[in-house]
Amino acid sequence: MSDILQLQEILETAIKNLKFPENPKQLYDPITYIINLGGKRIRPLLVLMSTELFGKNPNDAIHAAMAIEVFHNFTLVHDDIMDNAPLRRGKATVHEKWSTNTAILSGDVMMVEANKNLAKVNPIFLKDVLETFNSTAQGVCEGQQLDMEFEDRDDVTIAEYIDMIRLKTAVLLGGALKLGAIIAEASAKDADLIYQFGENIGIAFQLQDDILDVYADPEKFGKQVGGDIIANKKTFLLLKAFELAEKDNLQSLQTWTNYETFDVKEKVNAVKQVYDALNIRNIAMETMDNYMDKALALMAQINVSNEAKANILNLTNQLMARQH
Amino acid sequence: MSDILQLQEILETAIKNLKFPENPKQLYDPITYIINLGGKRIRPLLVLMSTELFGKNPNDAIHAAMAIEVFHNFTLVHDDIMDNAPLRRGKATVHEKWSTNTAILSGDVMMVEANKNLAKVNPIFLKDVLETFNSTAQGVCEGQQLDMEFEDRDDVTIAEYIDMIRLKTAVLLGGALKLGAIIAEASAKDADLIYQFGENIGIAFQLQDDILDVYADPEKFGKQVGGDIIANKKTFLLLKAFELAEKDNLQSLQTWTNYETFDVKEKVNAVKQVYDALNIRNIAMETMDNYMDKALALMAQINVSNEAKANILNLTNQLMARQH
Repeated sequence: MSDILQLQEILETAIKNLKFPENPKQLYDPITYIINLGGKRIRPLLVLMSTELFGKNPNDAIHAAMAIEVFHNFTLVHDDIMDNAPLRRGKATVHEKWSTNTAILSGDVMMVEANKNLAKVNPIFLKDVLETFNSTAQGVCEGQQLDMEFEDRDDVTIAEYIDMIRLKTAVLLGGALKLGAIIAEASAKDADLIYQFGENIGIAFQLQDDILDVYADPEKFGKQVGGDIIANKKTFLLLKAFELAEKDNLQSLQTWTNYETFDVKEKVNAVKQVYDALNIRNIAMETMDNYMDKALALMAQINVSNEAKANILNLTNQLMARQH
Repeated sequence: MSDILQLQEILETAIKNLKFPENPKQLYDPITYIINLGGKRIRPLLVLMSTELFGKNPNDAIHAAMAIEVFHNFTLVHDDIMDNAPLRRGKATVHEKWSTNTAILSGDVMMVEANKNLAKVNPIFLKDVLETFNSTAQGVCEGQQLDMEFEDRDDVTIAEYIDMIRLKTAVLLGGALKLGAIIAEASAKDADLIYQFGENIGIAFQLQDDILDVYADPEKFGKQVGGDIIANKKTFLLLKAFELAEKDNLQSLQTWTNYETFDVKEKVNAVKQVYDALNIRNIAMETMDNYMDKALALMAQINVSNEAKANILNLTNQLMARQH
């Protein structure tokens, strides 16, 4: 079995070899720019690992992996416009560096490039691969839509929130794993199990993000701790706190989330105090662990050896152990 | 052979049967809205006609036709954002009626819907169909990019302009026809000929648009005659006029295209006067006729009976005879 570093090397070579036309420069330069901002390449890595999990050469899945990575970067470009984000991985976002129009159109052509990579898959798998890719892409769009709508709603439930993060981030992990499985000719049952595994780890990862945003070690965390609290982002923690809070705690949450101007440290501390009083951190960790347990139970049902499962499980553990 | 009305009926039924999810409403309502604004459905019609041209049942190509129509409407939604257009077919554009973010994201999911329709094509043609569709989509994006860049450039040549309209509008007609040919199992040579035919009629149609914008009968023309002149749009006519103009004519063009405020009628008349002096209308019509002749010569080489060619040629003639 390849180790993770070998698979990452395969990916970096393939990413370097992604060729886009030279002209119009303004259309294609942003693609090279955003893809080379880096990132952990988790999604394409999952494609390759899944193909290997089911006994095939990970190189067989390289085009599908590139399709997933280019598609993911396309969503970043368009999401950054919609979220009005100035920075991505510490660098200017595409719409900031070029223009909104360029970011719209370069994003569009990235979607086409993703599809071009996908079309290179062995034709015997093409129909299944397209079906999984398209329903994944559709889910991601729906998730982004729900995320935007939640900003203007005051009645978002925990169940709605979980469904939003499932669509916005988890289906892409599930879809990546399922593509790898299809290309490895896994059984339909195993392909579905690995998809479900991916959705569940995806939800767990997002819940971990929500927790780290508040409780990460500021020395190790790459961004401002408490950023979600400052922005009133409707995370699992805030929604749960509103669900459980009564009297003073509820009033404190309402007061702090309604202030238009405030001292950043004071707000973070005040909201954290409510979280502590309501045991929110532990509730969030339990919920996260439940999704992880569900994922592991699904993995256990997959009909391959434990040795073959080691890579994906190691990666999952590494990601769950991260402090930032 | 089906007559055009029958084919249009097949299309309208298929368009009515395009089903999108109910939720999130804000994501899917704009799709139904833009698709039901109507239009002549030329592109999907060409898909069906091409399949019939090569001896197969046009119904075989219905999914590819829907993919082309949904893709075309996706480009309208995103182009309208980029062009800051308030109206489309006399109705509010998607970004005006909803918001720019909604128009970006609904557009994105339309691209996915287009691909979902495409994936329904008989798997034996899938690889070829995807290749043609993706390179068509890429060309359309490149054309839009060039069109935007031309707005800020003062050195656009006629050759560059023709290449821009080829990409922005003509490759989609060529691509539609080629998809129909692939599904009808036409030879590679015939599929390429019908593609080239489509590109050439597409360029002729756009040149006709440029001419009509200035010389249409105001009673029959749906929009303001002279709109391109008022907006300094770099059409074939304006570029040709700048290429040929000397002394007084050149000065008049420069003066009128530089005015920030002006009387609309006066500007249209002044620019038209230069066009008349330089014989621009005839030059544009000759160029248009050349593309049409080239298209007809390509059609003549296609290895099917003249009877089979009648539908596409009739539609082409109808479109070339339009006054608006």
